[in-house]
Amino acid sequence: MLEGKNFVYLATVNPDGTPQVTPTWVDTDGKFVLVNTAIGRVKHRNVKKNPNVALAITDQNNPYNLVVIRGKVVDQLTGRVADEHIDKMAKKYRGLDKYPNRSPGEQRVILKIEPTRVISARTAQSYLVSPYPDFFVLVNLSRSEIS
Amino acid sequence: MLEGKNFVYLATVNPDGTPQVTPTWVDTDGKFVLVNTAIGRVKHRNVKKNPNVALAITDQNNPYNLVVIRGKVVDQLTGRVADEHIDKMAKKYRGLDKYPNRSPGEQRVILKIEPTRVISARTAQSYLVSPYPDFFVLVNLSRSEIS
Repeated sequence: MLEGKNFVYLATVNPDGTPQVTPTWVDTDGKFVLVNTAIGRVKHRNVKKNPNVALAITDQNNPYNLVVIRGKVVDQLTGRVADEHIDKMAKKYRGLDKYPNRSPGEQRVILKIEPTRVISARTAQSYLVSPYPDFFVLVNLSRSEIS
Repeated sequence: MLEGKNFVYLATVNPDGTPQVTPTWVDTDGKFVLVNTAIGRVKHRNVKKNPNVALAITDQNNPYNLVVIRGKVVDQLTGRVADEHIDKMAKKYRGLDKYPNRSPGEQRVILKIEPTRVISARTAQSYLVSPYPDFFVLVNLSRSEIS
């Protein structure tokens, strides 16, 4: 799911305790979930204060195939690695060699998210264990726990 | 967007201050955003304690066409109206006359969400005013405010 061209819906908490959610491109290094944003944007400001995040990903070809992840931003990578990474994301999602939406002075940042809990659903009825056994604790929850 | 077969990604805040997000069906009565869930599920428990929510909706045919809504659960409707409404949702999204996923003893509830802020994006670059002028304040924000 993280490797497909699926959007992830990333939720953070605003300083006033209200939630915030935006769709974004997503990547993984096999261990962490990687989200590339720009320094100063709402989600970046929020995770500096409260590193807890939640992500929902649905398969673009089947919205009933979903993964929900709770996790924490454990590191932030800036500079060249983040610039190259947003170009890699533009390639993955848009087939472009360069990310086309840079604003003047924009500084990219990779949010490195450690998943703490993952729920994977193959259908609306059956909730299966995460497909990432190397770093995810097994989960086997009733439907009521995710919706 | 709310009237199409698009999923909405609804974010709430857990009692411990971490965010929670799940995709869900969505509806509108023209004034409020309506989300139908079951009593006792995470999102229902969360909005009882903290009624603030955020929603992101992308067009299923174009993920770059997005609407982000911040709002508050101002009312909850249960009983027959909520039961009939989930059947209506099953019709809209699945073409079914009856919602097929009811658990024994499940009680449906409609979360009536008053939007307090809406951001609509036709493309990744241009952010336009909400298509619901009757109840949404005009917004004209820079990209940095939503991502």
